[in-house]
Amino acid sequence: MNVYRFTEPFHTECGAVIEPLEIAYHTFGTLNAEGDNVVWVCHALTANSDVADWWPGTVEEGILLEPARWFVVCANIPGSCYGSTGPLSVNPATGRPYYGDFPPLTMRDIARVLHQFATAIGVGRINTLVGSSVGGFQALEWAAAHPERFDRLVLIATAAWATPWAIALDETQRMAIRSDQSYGEPREDAGAAGLAAARAIGLLSYRGGPAYNRTQRDLPPLEPFPAHRACSYQQHQGEKLVRRFNAYSYMSILNAFDTHNIGRQRGGIPAALSAITARAIVIGITTDLIFPPAEMRALAEALPRAEYVEIDSDMGHDGFLVENAQLTTMLVPFMNSPL
Amino acid sequence: MNVYRFTEPFHTECGAVIEPLEIAYHTFGTLNAEGDNVVWVCHALTANSDVADWWPGTVEEGILLEPARWFVVCANIPGSCYGSTGPLSVNPATGRPYYGDFPPLTMRDIARVLHQFATAIGVGRINTLVGSSVGGFQALEWAAAHPERFDRLVLIATAAWATPWAIALDETQRMAIRSDQSYGEPREDAGAAGLAAARAIGLLSYRGGPAYNRTQRDLPPLEPFPAHRACSYQQHQGEKLVRRFNAYSYMSILNAFDTHNIGRQRGGIPAALSAITARAIVIGITTDLIFPPAEMRALAEALPRAEYVEIDSDMGHDGFLVENAQLTTMLVPFMNSPL
Repeated sequence: MNVYRFTEPFHTECGAVIEPLEIAYHTFGTLNAEGDNVVWVCHALTANSDVADWWPGTVEEGILLEPARWFVVCANIPGSCYGSTGPLSVNPATGRPYYGDFPPLTMRDIARVLHQFATAIGVGRINTLVGSSVGGFQALEWAAAHPERFDRLVLIATAAWATPWAIALDETQRMAIRSDQSYGEPREDAGAAGLAAARAIGLLSYRGGPAYNRTQRDLPPLEPFPAHRACSYQQHQGEKLVRRFNAYSYMSILNAFDTHNIGRQRGGIPAALSAITARAIVIGITTDLIFPPAEMRALAEALPRAEYVEIDSDMGHDGFLVENAQLTTMLVPFMNSPL
Repeated sequence: MNVYRFTEPFHTECGAVIEPLEIAYHTFGTLNAEGDNVVWVCHALTANSDVADWWPGTVEEGILLEPARWFVVCANIPGSCYGSTGPLSVNPATGRPYYGDFPPLTMRDIARVLHQFATAIGVGRINTLVGSSVGGFQALEWAAAHPERFDRLVLIATAAWATPWAIALDETQRMAIRSDQSYGEPREDAGAAGLAAARAIGLLSYRGGPAYNRTQRDLPPLEPFPAHRACSYQQHQGEKLVRRFNAYSYMSILNAFDTHNIGRQRGGIPAALSAITARAIVIGITTDLIFPPAEMRALAEALPRAEYVEIDSDMGHDGFLVENAQLTTMLVPFMNSPL
C-alpha cells in the first residue's frame, strides 16, 4: 500500500476544507510508455485499495489483473478507514480525530479526489475504469465529469443516481447506528453495536431471500426455539465488520452514497449519461435487490456506447463479488475488444 | 373492545406459566343460532383486535364484514400491547411489569391461546379463518392443530414456516433494538430508538424497491445534500410505531414469528399441510419480498383443497393492507361459494 498526500487543500462541495488529504492506494503491474494500459478500479462501501485481496477470482493474475499487460490502480476513498483521510484521521484544527466532525463528502467530491489523485501519480488516460456498487457511482460520476479521460467503462450492479429505495436502505442503517447511544462519543468503537446492526441490514439487501434460503437453512429436528443459522449469520456479519471498520467512516460513506446523482447540475441524468463517450459494459445481476436488472438495462440504454449483460445468480447484489467465472467471461472479451 | 380472562393458567411450550392470561378482542355482528357464521381474523405483527380499523376496505360493512350475516372475531395476540397480556402486563410474581421477562411464546402457543379463547367465548365451528402475514402463521398453525374446526381458510402473504430469509429480517430488527443501550431498562419506552430502526427495517421488507421508488421520489432541483423524502419516511414510520408500540412486545412477537413451523412434531410441513381439510384460498402478491409468489403458490399446491390467486401490486408485502379492491374481488366469491 502506498499513500499519496495532496499538496493542496481539498475543498468539498459543501465548502469544507480537508488538509492534509491523504489517499492510500495499491498498484499492480507497470504503467507502460504509451500510458494506455491503466485499469482503474473504484471500490465499494467498506472495501479498500487492495483490490486483489477483496476481488479474488476477478482481479487476480491470469484474469483481469495481468501485471505484464495492465497497470491496475485502486485507491481507498476518502471517508473510509483503510489509509485514506477519514473520520479517524487527526483534524489539524483540534489535534484530535475528526470522528463525527469529518466534513461531509458528496460522491462528486470523491470522484474529484480520484481525478486529481490519478493525475498526481502520473496517470493520464485510463484504458478501463471499473466500478461495482458504490464503486460504480464513483466511476459514473468521474466519467460524466471527465469523459475524455476514459476509453472503457465497466459498470457492475450500480446506478447513475441513488434511488429512493437505496436511500431508504441507507437511512435505515443510519437509524440503527444512531439508536446506539454510544455513537457520537469520541472513540473509534463508538456506535459499534449500531454499526453491526447496520451491516446486518446491508447484508439483507446485498443477498435477498433466495440466497438466505439456500445458505442459511436450519437442519431438522427443530426445537421450539432453535438457534437459527440465519440469526448467527447476521450477528457474525455485523461483528466481522465492527472488527475492521468504524461507525463514523460507515456514516461518511453512506452519506456520500445518498448524494449520488450524476444529473445534478448537468441537466439531468439522461444528459449526463449521453456525454459519456467511453465504450461501456453494464452488468446486472438477476437477483440484485438494490440495482435490479431492469434498472441496469435502462442505464445501458441511456449510455451512448454500452452493451448490457446479466449475471445469473441467486446471490443478489453480492453476486458481483462471488460470480467470478461469469464476470470474467464477460469482462475479458470486453477488455480485449477494439475501441 | 372486550377482554376475556382465562380461568386457568396458560402453560407455554417452553414450560412457563402465564396467569392471569387476558385476551382483548372485538366482535362484529352476531353469532347465529346454527353457529356457522363465524369469520375469524388473525392479525399481523403490530396490529390489534379492531380489524375494522386496521383493515378498512376489506373488513368493513358491505365487503367482508356484513354484520347482518357474519360474526367477525379478532383477538389481540398475547405478547402484544393492545389489551392482551404481554410484556407490559404486571407479572404477579413481582408486582411489576414483565418487560423482558415475559415468557417466550411460540406461534403454536399463540394458536393454542386462540383455540381455547374461541371455545371460551362460545365459538365452535369457524366458517372462515383469515390470516395475512403473521396472522396467516397463526391461521395455519391453528388449522393444522384442529382441522375439524374450520370450513374455509384465507391465507394472504404468509407461509407454513419462518424461512431463513424471514428470520434474518427479524434478527436484524432484534440487533437494531439491542443496539439501543436503553433496551432492557424497566420502562415502557426502553429501546425506543432501536424499535424505530427495527420498524424502518421492517418497512423496507414490507415495501421493496418499486414502492419506494414510486412513492418517495425527491423533487428536483437536487442540492448536494437534499432532505431526502425516503429518509424522512423511514424516520416517520419508526417514530409512528414508537408512539403506539413498545420494544418488549415487538421482541416477543418477532421471537414467536421465528418459531413458526407447522411441520414441527408433525412429520414435516407437507404432512402437516396435508391434514388441513378446510377449503383454502392462498393469495400472493407479485412484489412481496418476504413471501414471494413462488412460495405462496407452493403453499397452495401443498394444501389438499386450495386455489392460488395473486394480487398484482408494486406495494410489496404491504399489498395485503392496501390492495383492497383486488382482495375483495378474490374473497367475496370464495366466501360465497359452496364448500
